[in-house]
Amino acid sequence: MARKASENKDGRRQTTIREVAERAGVSVATVSRILSGTYPAAPATRSKVMRAVEELDYVANHHARALQGTTRKSIAIIVNSVISPHYAHVAQGVQTQAAEDGRLCQIGTSGGDAERELAMVQFMREQHPEAVILVGNVNADDEYKARMSRYAHALAAVGSRLVLCGRPPLGPDAPAVVVEYDNTGGAFAATSHLLSNGHKRILFLGRRPGYTTPDARIAGYRGALAAHGVPHDPGLEVDGTFERYEGYRMMQARLSAGPPDFTAAFAANDQIAAGARQALVEHGLAIPSDISLIGFDDLPPAADIDLTTVYQPHEELGRTSVRLALEHARNGGPPPHTTLGAHLVIRGSVAPIVAA
Amino acid sequence: MARKASENKDGRRQTTIREVAERAGVSVATVSRILSGTYPAAPATRSKVMRAVEELDYVANHHARALQGTTRKSIAIIVNSVISPHYAHVAQGVQTQAAEDGRLCQIGTSGGDAERELAMVQFMREQHPEAVILVGNVNADDEYKARMSRYAHALAAVGSRLVLCGRPPLGPDAPAVVVEYDNTGGAFAATSHLLSNGHKRILFLGRRPGYTTPDARIAGYRGALAAHGVPHDPGLEVDGTFERYEGYRMMQARLSAGPPDFTAAFAANDQIAAGARQALVEHGLAIPSDISLIGFDDLPPAADIDLTTVYQPHEELGRTSVRLALEHARNGGPPPHTTLGAHLVIRGSVAPIVAA
Repeated sequence: MARKASENKDGRRQTTIREVAERAGVSVATVSRILSGTYPAAPATRSKVMRAVEELDYVANHHARALQGTTRKSIAIIVNSVISPHYAHVAQGVQTQAAEDGRLCQIGTSGGDAERELAMVQFMREQHPEAVILVGNVNADDEYKARMSRYAHALAAVGSRLVLCGRPPLGPDAPAVVVEYDNTGGAFAATSHLLSNGHKRILFLGRRPGYTTPDARIAGYRGALAAHGVPHDPGLEVDGTFERYEGYRMMQARLSAGPPDFTAAFAANDQIAAGARQALVEHGLAIPSDISLIGFDDLPPAADIDLTTVYQPHEELGRTSVRLALEHARNGGPPPHTTLGAHLVIRGSVAPIVAA
Repeated sequence: MARKASENKDGRRQTTIREVAERAGVSVATVSRILSGTYPAAPATRSKVMRAVEELDYVANHHARALQGTTRKSIAIIVNSVISPHYAHVAQGVQTQAAEDGRLCQIGTSGGDAERELAMVQFMREQHPEAVILVGNVNADDEYKARMSRYAHALAAVGSRLVLCGRPPLGPDAPAVVVEYDNTGGAFAATSHLLSNGHKRILFLGRRPGYTTPDARIAGYRGALAAHGVPHDPGLEVDGTFERYEGYRMMQARLSAGPPDFTAAFAANDQIAAGARQALVEHGLAIPSDISLIGFDDLPPAADIDLTTVYQPHEELGRTSVRLALEHARNGGPPPHTTLGAHLVIRGSVAPIVAA
């Protein structure tokens, strides 16, 4: 099983760091520091070394293994899916901040499946990332909290840290950085905007009891109704997930059942709003003159369909996750916990109710 | 530097495979095969083992290192960016097919930068993926070809393979799997559709000489003009990249310079079309009654803005990349090269020219 450091598993000879240094015309120490990603090298020097590495087909990894503690620095992020604009933009923010801080970024997907998430965490941990960022909507039951707590401790034990991004905190004992955004505040603002325009029968599209993101948004919806003294009708809350086809399905089913018993709809994200809009149009209902519509996210296609929605700082969530994790690595102390704000973006999909 | 297999770099004791097996009540060999990802285990057995692994905080990697050749199987993909719907959908296809084949999938981004792409290839290669899939538009100069050829050989030397997805082939000597899609055929179909509707002055939005994807699409545009006997006016070709704001910028500049000298526009992708549409609307021009518009991709927001466009099978590109790479790993022989087709999707953004 033992293998010489200069051979890979097929017994093929690996280029040595000395050869790279000679080819680049710099010292071995310089190559080492540049490859470890911690050295603020002159661009020309860095460029020479990287070219030599490339020409000699040098695997930085083998070098890193031979020099304890100089593994290439990286950040790992795991999202449910990359085709969701929300997750893609958070991942983009992580990528951007990681690059600015001289880190590589690897992205994994879980499909929302806990077993695959575990496999990804273990797989990514092999490369000793400084942080593993987990993003997104979860069923925050006890099993979830226990699993996250294990991740947090297991990562802390190897000098890495868990970041929960858009996920609920675990409590004081788990060493996890938490970056949340204000789902409830944003949903309160969206619903209040409809109420201020005279709407009282407001459909909520995308309820999913037990899941953190829809639960937080429906709490804002109900809170706004209560604050405006408008009765809460559970019959106006429609169950569904956060995809466009789900928005279409929910609205389609509602309109097929009879004439609309609502004057406005609050879609729990923009994808749902886009699907609901298509169903409304197919039923000959105009937005906003017949039905007002509001979304959540301010991501494509919100601007293209002139959708009033709630902006939340997706890329900033990713960037903040990286910044706080690296700060915590430098400074120690209790892991930081922050919440980013959301605000309303007014476009053309909401009209006031005019008394008949 | 030498470290006992049962300790990690902080000297903390690692769980052994024997402890996992005991806890799960199965043999060491069963744990080994399940963790290596190659064993068609009964779900209940797999579940028991994974729970034991989790409970014992067992790092599959350490196990894999101790058992030569049983590293967890994986596929790596590198895209320019995950916020482009095209790249996100290709990555999703890779992810889906990898999961079906029992592989983990890691995603890296390059930002279109060759040096970062190199760093990502080296970083990902440390985990011995069976394939490294590189996706997307490049400046296919000699330097590119030489770099890809080095990647192909370097990966082949460690039993992995390079897949060029939506990138041009390298020639017979480089061991790279190639999965292309029919950019030129799709652009020919889109332009022909406008020409068949009587349009002769057709703006092309998104020229970028030297880059493979826009070059292939503009070739289809020019080919259709020639086939229909319509003179080619280079003044109708507008330079820009594939983002929505670029589409807005290009159309905005054109309309600000004077009344439109075209009756239709072919946007090199749907993002450009969405931005161009916004500029047209802001100038009081209606689609399709004043200006016809056609895109390329059939990705969001195409359906939401009723855009006639060219469908290409984004997820299938990703899935095919994985399938062909794994087939090649099994069967050997010359690396496969395939091209997937594209077809027109008719919506409401194109109208016929009516003689005055």
